[in-house]
Amino acid sequence: MTLNTDNARLRLGMVGGGQGAFIGAVHRMAARIDDQFELVAGALSADPARAQSSGAAIGLAPDRIYDGYEQMLEREAARADRIDAVAIVTPNHLHFPVARRALELGFHVICDKPMTLTTAEAEALVALQAQTGLVFVLTHNYTGYPMVRQARAMVEAGELGALRVVQVEYPQEWLTQAVESKQAEWRTDPSRSGAGGCIGDIGTHCFQLARYVTGLTPEAILADLSSFVPGRKLDDNVNMLLRFVGGARGMLWASQVAPGHDNGLKLRVYGEKAGLEWVQATPNDLIFTPYAAPKQIIARNGGGTLPAARRVTRVPAGHPEGYVEGFSTLYGEAARAIRAHKAGQALDPAVHYPTVADGLEGMRFIAAAVASSAAGGVWTAL
Amino acid sequence: MTLNTDNARLRLGMVGGGQGAFIGAVHRMAARIDDQFELVAGALSADPARAQSSGAAIGLAPDRIYDGYEQMLEREAARADRIDAVAIVTPNHLHFPVARRALELGFHVICDKPMTLTTAEAEALVALQAQTGLVFVLTHNYTGYPMVRQARAMVEAGELGALRVVQVEYPQEWLTQAVESKQAEWRTDPSRSGAGGCIGDIGTHCFQLARYVTGLTPEAILADLSSFVPGRKLDDNVNMLLRFVGGARGMLWASQVAPGHDNGLKLRVYGEKAGLEWVQATPNDLIFTPYAAPKQIIARNGGGTLPAARRVTRVPAGHPEGYVEGFSTLYGEAARAIRAHKAGQALDPAVHYPTVADGLEGMRFIAAAVASSAAGGVWTAL
Amino acid sequence: MTLNTDNARLRLGMVGGGQGAFIGAVHRMAARIDDQFELVAGALSADPARAQSSGAAIGLAPDRIYDGYEQMLEREAARADRIDAVAIVTPNHLHFPVARRALELGFHVICDKPMTLTTAEAEALVALQAQTGLVFVLTHNYTGYPMVRQARAMVEAGELGALRVVQVEYPQEWLTQAVESKQAEWRTDPSRSGAGGCIGDIGTHCFQLARYVTGLTPEAILADLSSFVPGRKLDDNVNMLLRFVGGARGMLWASQVAPGHDNGLKLRVYGEKAGLEWVQATPNDLIFTPYAAPKQIIARNGGGTLPAARRVTRVPAGHPEGYVEGFSTLYGEAARAIRAHKAGQALDPAVHYPTVADGLEGMRFIAAAVASSAAGGVWTAL
Amino acid sequence: MTLNTDNARLRLGMVGGGQGAFIGAVHRMAARIDDQFELVAGALSADPARAQSSGAAIGLAPDRIYDGYEQMLEREAARADRIDAVAIVTPNHLHFPVARRALELGFHVICDKPMTLTTAEAEALVALQAQTGLVFVLTHNYTGYPMVRQARAMVEAGELGALRVVQVEYPQEWLTQAVESKQAEWRTDPSRSGAGGCIGDIGTHCFQLARYVTGLTPEAILADLSSFVPGRKLDDNVNMLLRFVGGARGMLWASQVAPGHDNGLKLRVYGEKAGLEWVQATPNDLIFTPYAAPKQIIARNGGGTLPAARRVTRVPAGHPEGYVEGFSTLYGEAARAIRAHKAGQALDPAVHYPTVADGLEGMRFIAAAVASSAAGGVWTAL
Repeated sequence: MTLNTDNARLRLGMVGGGQGAFIGAVHRMAARIDDQFELVAGALSADPARAQSSGAAIGLAPDRIYDGYEQMLEREAARADRIDAVAIVTPNHLHFPVARRALELGFHVICDKPMTLTTAEAEALVALQAQTGLVFVLTHNYTGYPMVRQARAMVEAGELGALRVVQVEYPQEWLTQAVESKQAEWRTDPSRSGAGGCIGDIGTHCFQLARYVTGLTPEAILADLSSFVPGRKLDDNVNMLLRFVGGARGMLWASQVAPGHDNGLKLRVYGEKAGLEWVQATPNDLIFTPYAAPKQIIARNGGGTLPAARRVTRVPAGHPEGYVEGFSTLYGEAARAIRAHKAGQALDPAVHYPTVADGLEGMRFIAAAVASSAAGGVWTAL
Repeated sequence: MTLNTDNARLRLGMVGGGQGAFIGAVHRMAARIDDQFELVAGALSADPARAQSSGAAIGLAPDRIYDGYEQMLEREAARADRIDAVAIVTPNHLHFPVARRALELGFHVICDKPMTLTTAEAEALVALQAQTGLVFVLTHNYTGYPMVRQARAMVEAGELGALRVVQVEYPQEWLTQAVESKQAEWRTDPSRSGAGGCIGDIGTHCFQLARYVTGLTPEAILADLSSFVPGRKLDDNVNMLLRFVGGARGMLWASQVAPGHDNGLKLRVYGEKAGLEWVQATPNDLIFTPYAAPKQIIARNGGGTLPAARRVTRVPAGHPEGYVEGFSTLYGEAARAIRAHKAGQALDPAVHYPTVADGLEGMRFIAAAVASSAAGGVWTAL
Repeated sequence: MTLNTDNARLRLGMVGGGQGAFIGAVHRMAARIDDQFELVAGALSADPARAQSSGAAIGLAPDRIYDGYEQMLEREAARADRIDAVAIVTPNHLHFPVARRALELGFHVICDKPMTLTTAEAEALVALQAQTGLVFVLTHNYTGYPMVRQARAMVEAGELGALRVVQVEYPQEWLTQAVESKQAEWRTDPSRSGAGGCIGDIGTHCFQLARYVTGLTPEAILADLSSFVPGRKLDDNVNMLLRFVGGARGMLWASQVAPGHDNGLKLRVYGEKAGLEWVQATPNDLIFTPYAAPKQIIARNGGGTLPAARRVTRVPAGHPEGYVEGFSTLYGEAARAIRAHKAGQALDPAVHYPTVADGLEGMRFIAAAVASSAAGGVWTAL
Repeated sequence: MTLNTDNARLRLGMVGGGQGAFIGAVHRMAARIDDQFELVAGALSADPARAQSSGAAIGLAPDRIYDGYEQMLEREAARADRIDAVAIVTPNHLHFPVARRALELGFHVICDKPMTLTTAEAEALVALQAQTGLVFVLTHNYTGYPMVRQARAMVEAGELGALRVVQVEYPQEWLTQAVESKQAEWRTDPSRSGAGGCIGDIGTHCFQLARYVTGLTPEAILADLSSFVPGRKLDDNVNMLLRFVGGARGMLWASQVAPGHDNGLKLRVYGEKAGLEWVQATPNDLIFTPYAAPKQIIARNGGGTLPAARRVTRVPAGHPEGYVEGFSTLYGEAARAIRAHKAGQALDPAVHYPTVADGLEGMRFIAAAVASSAAGGVWTAL
C-alpha cells in the first residue's frame, strides 16, 4: 500500500475531542497513521478555557485554537491556508449544526455516527451534500478493517451463494450499572444522544456493518428495546429481527448491559454455499465456512486475501492491526476522495467509505426501531 | 462419582434404533457408560426383518427381539425378568403411542424429544405419568453436561444477580441443501416430525436449555420461521424473541441452513453482576464473566466447580468428556430414580432430569412458535 | 461404524482399579462404550478386603472377585468360561509380573503405560509376546482419538511433504505443590513408578504420540530433567531436544508443575508443504495449515476426514467425543485383534494399536532421558 | 494517557526504509501515532535515485533527502533545526556504522535489532553510549505491548511466586520455501544479517521477551540450529534449552519453516503459584492461571490491569491495539527519554525501553547459540 501519494498533507480541523474525550483522540491517531492529514485547527470544547488548554496540549498554533465551531469554520474559511476538512467528534446533537455549517462554507466533512439527532436533520444533510458535492465521510469505522472488506468482497464474488441468514451483535458491559463517566453521561441523555441509546450508539454499527458486508436491502425490522438500569432514560439493550428484500432473515442484538463483553461486535452471514464470521476483538481473522468442508481461517494479508482487503492493510500477516488502523482506513479513503475532488479527477473506484446516505439510513433505522418497540414490538417497514 | 451403587443392572428395552439410526446407538452407548442398564429387549425397527437383523447385530437374545413395540411391551410385561424401562428412540410421531402403552403396562420411560407430535398428546402423557407415578425421562441431553449443571447452580446461587438477557442459539449446516438421508427425511416430514421442523428438532433444545439454566419463566415469544430450501415443508431456520416474567429478554436462533456449524448450541446469560457462556462443542469449559473483572474459564472438575457439576462428572479436568457422557448423565439419573421407585424410597434431591412436564412445555413452545410465525411474526403468549 | 460385529462379548478380567483408583474406572467405561467386552473377573486391589468391596461395588460375581492377580489368573485359566483378556491398571511396578503371568497362561493383555519398570523387563515381555503370539495392547490411549488417526493418515498420504520439525508438549499443574493423593503418591515413588517421574508418566505419551503421527525414527535425544518441588524424588519437568533419522528436529516438554494446564497434551508437526496441530483438550478438531494458504479446521466426522479417522468415530461432527471414547477405540481395536486371533483369521489391516514393541521403545526412551540428564544434558542415542 | 505533553514534536531522521522496505514504514507509523515525532530527514536508500524518490514519496523537504547516512548525519549536525534522533531501519550490517556515527555527532538513536553484526561491535556501542549519555532505544518492539508490560509487572509483584519454567517460541512460515523477496534476501545472507539467521532475526526477540518479562538471568543455553531449505546459508530453525540462575529452566523455539504460523510469538511462564501466557497475534489478552483455580483472561485496559500496562495503552478494552501501537510505545518512551535529556531532568522511573545493553546481550546470545550448535549442541555459558 502506498501510504502517501502526495507530498502535502491535507489540513484538518476538529470540532470536539477536548481533554478527556475518547473518540477525538482516536480520530487524531487515525488521521496520523497513514500521514495524509495534519491537524491544524480545532474547536475542541464548548467551554472556551478547555478549548484553549486542549488545543495547546496537542500543539495547535494559538491562532487556530477556536472557542466554538462557528468561529473556527468562519475564520478558517477566510484563510489562504484554510483547512480542507472538518472532523466532527462531538456528542450527537452537535453533528448536524456543525456539518451543515461546514458544508455551507465549502469544507469536506468527516463526521461521527449516528449522523444527526433526527431523520429530518439527516435528510437536510443529504440534500446539502448533494448540492455542494463535497466529500462527506461518516465514520462507521468497522468498515475500515481489512477483513471486513475481505468479507464484503467475498460476498460480492458469490463465494457464499445467495444469502439467507444474517446474525449481527454488539454486546458491551460498560453500562451494566449506573455509570457517571463523561462518555456515559451524554450517551444516556436523549437531548444529546437522540431517541436511541444503545440502538443509536452501537445498534447502528451492527446495522451498517451487516448492510455493508451483505449488500442486502432491509425491508422491515421488529425491535424489542429495554432499559434495564433503573432511571436510565434510553434503551440499553436491543433485541431485533430483520427481514431483507429477497427473503433473507436477520437478527441483531446490541447491549450495553452484558457483563464480559467490552466491544463484542460480531457478524455472521450464511448463504447457500458457505458462511462467514468476523469478530471485532480479533479483527485480523476472517472465518470462511464452505458447506460440508473444513473451516478456513483467512488471515489479513495472508493466503486467500483479495485486493479489496490488501489495499487497506499495512503490516504483514500475523502482526495484528487494530482498532485505530481500521479507523485510519476511513481517513485514508477520505484523503483520496478529497484529493480527487481538489484535482477535479475521477475517484479510483476501489475507494469507498460510509456516506451521508448511510447516515440517513442509520437515522431511519433508529426511528423505526424506536417506533417498533414503542408499539409493543411490531414489524415496521424501513 | 460412584458409578454403580448396586450390583444388578436395570433391564432396558428399546423401541427404534435399528441399523443406520443415529440416536439409538447413542442411547445404547450412554446407557452402558455408567453401567446402570443392560439392554435386553428391542423392537428396533418397524420392518420385521430389519428388527431381527438389528437386534442380532447388537447381541440381543433371539426371544427378546420383537417385531413391534406392542409385541415387545406386552410380552415383556408377562415375563418374570421383564424390562424395567423402555427407551423410545423412534421418529417423533411414534413417541406418544409407545410411551402411552409403556406407562399403561407399568414400564418406566426414557423418551427422545420433542415428546410428542401434538400438545394434546403431551397433555395426555402428563396425565398418564401422574396417574402411574412411573419415572419419565425426556432426553434433553444437554442438561446432562456437567458444566451446564454448573451454570444452573451458579445462577441459582445468585452469582449473576437478577438475570436480564438470555441469548441461545443452535445453528447446524446439515440441511443447507436438500438432503436425502434417513435422518433428514423424517425430520422434514410433518407427518412424522410434527408441526415444527428446525423449531422442534433443535429449537426445543435451545428453549429447554435456557429454561433449565436460568430458571426464568417465559411469558411470550415472537417467531419468524423460514423454510429456505425449495420444496421443504417444514421450517429450517428460526429467529425468535422472548420475554420472560420479571422483565428479562431473550433471543433464540436455531438453524439447519448455517454452513460451518455442525451442532453449534451456545447459551449466554447476563445478569446484574455477571454473565455466563457455554458452548456445546467445547462443553468442558464454562466461561464466567463478572462485571468489570477478568473473564474466568472454569474447567469441568477443576477449581471453582460446584457439587452439582462434580457429581455427574467422570474423569479429571483436562480430559474432555463429550456428548455421549452428557447423555449418559441422564441415564444415570434415570437409574437413580428408577431404583428409588423400585425401593419405595425418596429420591436424592440432587437427582434431576427433564420430565414429562418439560415435554409438554416444549410442545406448547413449538405450537406457539408456529402460530406466531404463521400470523406474520407476532407476540404470542406461552 | 459397526459397534458390535459379534453377538458374544469378550470376557475381561482386571488387575488393579479398586475404589478410589482413576484409570481403572476409565478402562471399564472404555471397555463398555463399544460393547465388545464384559468385565467378569477382577483382582482390583492388593488389599484383599478392598479387593472384595471393590469387586462387589461394580457387580462382579463373588466367585470371580480375587484377592490377587496370581489367584485370578490361575483360577480363570482353569474355567471353561475363562476370561479372554486381562486389563492391567496397577501402578507401574506391577505391570511386568502381571503381564508376564497373563501371557504365560494364555491371556491376551491390555496394559497401561509405561509398560514396565525397567528396559530389561520390557525386553522380556517382547520376547514372551512373540513366543505366545497373544494380543498385547499398550494403552497409549491418545492414539485412539479419531483426529490423531486423521493426522497420521495425512502425514502418511504426504499432505505435509517431508517432515522437518516436531513440537510436542504435555504440561500439567497437578504436582505444582507437594500433593498427597493416591494418584500422586506412587507416581513420585521410584520403587513403584520407575526411574522416570514426569518423563515416564506423560513424557512417554508425548514421545509415542509424536512417533505414531510422524512415523519418524528418533536418533538421539537430549534431556534436562528437573525436580522443582522440594523433597520430590523423581523429575517433575522435562525439557528435551530430539533428532530424527533424516534430519528432522524436535522438542518435547512435559511438566507436572505448570499451573493452568490440566492435561495440555499438544502435538505440532511441520513439513515442507504444510503443518498440523492437535490439542488433546479439544480433540475433535485437527488444524491443518498448508503453506501460504488459509488455516483449515478439520472437524471429526466432518468434511475432509479420512477413512482412518472415520472408522473409529461414533457420533456426528459437532457432538464432541472425549477422552473415554478415545480410550475406547483401543478397546475396540483390541477386540478386533482378539476375535481374529480366536478365529484364526487375518486381522483387518486397518486395525492397529500400540504394541509391546512400543512399550519397549518407551522404556528405552525413559532410560535414555534419565541418562542424558544425569550426564548433565548430553545427546544420547536412542 | 496524555499522548502529547509538549507542543513541539521532536525531529527525526531515518536511515533505511526506502520504497518496498517493510520495517521503515512501520517505524514511521509508530512514530506518528502518539504524535511525538516529525520525520524531517532521511537517507532512505543506499541507491541515491531510490533515496530521492523514496524521500519525495513521503513528503520530505528536498534539502533533507540525503544520498547516504554520512551525508545526512553531517549536514543535519550543522543545522540549527537539526534532527533530535535517528531511526536506523537498515539491514543489520549497517546498524553499527550508522549508530556509531550518530552517537559521535550527538544524535539520539532508535535502532532495529539485532543491534550489530558482531559482539565486538555491540561492545563498542555500549561504550560509546555510556560515553555520550545519549538515548539509545533498541526496538525490541514486543515489549511495547501493554499486556507484555502487564505480565512483567505481575511477575515483579510476585503473583506467580518463584519462577520455574519458561517457554517461548516464535514460529513463522515465510521461509518454508526458497524465497526471493527483498526481505528474505538480506536476512539469509551472513554478510548482511550476521552469524545468525532465524536465531538473530526472531530468536533474539524470544530471548529478550523472556528476559524482559521474567527478570531471570540466563546461565547457559544449548542450541540445535538447522538449515532446512537447500542452499540456505543461515539457520532457519532453532531448538534451544535454557538454564537460568536460581534453577529455572526454559525452552526456546524459533522457526522460519513452520507452515501455518505468520508471527507466532508466544511466551509462557510458570511459577510456584501461577502461570502466564501471552500470544502476539492476540496481544490484547493476557492469560493468568493461578494454581487449581479458573483461568483468567485479563483484557488490555480492563479489570485487573496494572498501571504499568495502562500507562501505555490508548483505546478502551475490546477495541484491539495492534503491532504498530506496540511499536509506538517504544517511540513514546524514546520521546520521554529524549525530552528529559534535553531538559536535563530526571526521567520518570516508569519509562523504560530496551537499551544498548540489551543489544549487547542479544549479540552474545546469538554468538553462544551459534557456538553451541556448531559444537554439536552443547551447553554454553552466556
